[in-house]
Amino acid sequence: MSPPAVILSHPQMGENVGSAARAMKNFGLSDLRLIAPQFGWPNDRAQILASGSGDILEAAQLHPDAASALAGFQLVLATTARARDAVREVLTPAEAAARLREAESRGIKTALLFGAERAGLDNDEISLCDALITIPTAKMSSLNLGQAVLLLGYEWLKAADTTPATRTRDSFNDKPASRQELVDMLEHLEGELDAGGFFFPPAKKGAMVRNIRAMILRAGLNDGEVRTIRGMIVALVKNKYRGEKK
Amino acid sequence: MSPPAVILSHPQMGENVGSAARAMKNFGLSDLRLIAPQFGWPNDRAQILASGSGDILEAAQLHPDAASALAGFQLVLATTARARDAVREVLTPAEAAARLREAESRGIKTALLFGAERAGLDNDEISLCDALITIPTAKMSSLNLGQAVLLLGYEWLKAADTTPATRTRDSFNDKPASRQELVDMLEHLEGELDAGGFFFPPAKKGAMVRNIRAMILRAGLNDGEVRTIRGMIVALVKNKYRGEKK
Repeated sequence: MSPPAVILSHPQMGENVGSAARAMKNFGLSDLRLIAPQFGWPNDRAQILASGSGDILEAAQLHPDAASALAGFQLVLATTARARDAVREVLTPAEAAARLREAESRGIKTALLFGAERAGLDNDEISLCDALITIPTAKMSSLNLGQAVLLLGYEWLKAADTTPATRTRDSFNDKPASRQELVDMLEHLEGELDAGGFFFPPAKKGAMVRNIRAMILRAGLNDGEVRTIRGMIVALVKNKYRGEKK
Repeated sequence: MSPPAVILSHPQMGENVGSAARAMKNFGLSDLRLIAPQFGWPNDRAQILASGSGDILEAAQLHPDAASALAGFQLVLATTARARDAVREVLTPAEAAARLREAESRGIKTALLFGAERAGLDNDEISLCDALITIPTAKMSSLNLGQAVLLLGYEWLKAADTTPATRTRDSFNDKPASRQELVDMLEHLEGELDAGGFFFPPAKKGAMVRNIRAMILRAGLNDGEVRTIRGMIVALVKNKYRGEKK
């Protein structure tokens, strides 16, 4: 199960090949192919921009044309910002990523084809591809080559990423507080608030307590934090009594 | 309903502010704020990289610190690649985008906070934010500032983008072929195939016809394409008869 190849057709600037290589590395892609680059190869500017992903540049294959670069692939998706003069299926990047993953899981060799910085892909190159990908943008739609590779690489990685949409990062390895710890803390707090005359009028105490509990439990406290809050209550109460004694 | 502000803390290179502005324009963001940039402002390198989004640079606000830059915002999400020494909720970019959209729909002012190129955000800056965002990457996790803004802008636009995952782009405004046009074409093809002795053994004709029909209907032909295929059949048949006559 191998990640899609990234094939850049007629790139005009070494810098963009370098930043494409770097974006590939960020998202776990490694097979880079160049169709007739418009600059000498290897290329110093590409090396500089590729910082940390020079291995991808060194292993990059050169091809004279799209037919040769694409010869071994069974599913090829092409990025394009413009409408074309033939009827083609157009995918969102997320849908493209899902299709690539599905194909890879069946052992199918996949590739993403990107056009030159200004001209994009020509119609003959596009006629060799299975479907097109258009990246959604606001009115200004021009993305550079490195950015287009970055967004497709990101969607490809994301399609198999199991990171939950939200998680709580806890570098102390504290556990969520138990209900007993929370209740002890809440009763401690409510007792001191009662002593301070906070619950007024008394008839509203029940609702006030429920609102305070909702506000505190929403924070999802861990056991260390519950201890911190109890220390805070003690410190606040001590100051108050000290003030009253004066 | 206004898009999130993009706030860059202590940026080190004008180039990155320029590419951030450009990425903002690509995805419909416009409110840029800089906290204590480490270079003179306005900045030539930023202008060059911002090509087409100079208006965003010109309107950018400068602030001395995060507290001042964030003062007016009610929901602030901070991007970070590293674990932190406090317990914080960490969101995927997609979840962050969904929360920003939901907040905006209630008139809440939102912002995305990005740290400096090397150092990232410091712990005091992070303590002012509601939650963190970590962009999923492969082993090499370092994204530059412009790329991080690009990916968050992309997810934000995508969260309200209604482009279907797959569509067929048809610049001739042809309509899908009617069932009658398709059936006429299939019968034309099958008749000529029959005349050419294609359906052998005859007992298998039914299954062979069904396979051919499945293969052709999968292409989702439009009416112009159906006419093209009928012309192709006529041309092929003509050649065949000419060959036989020799």
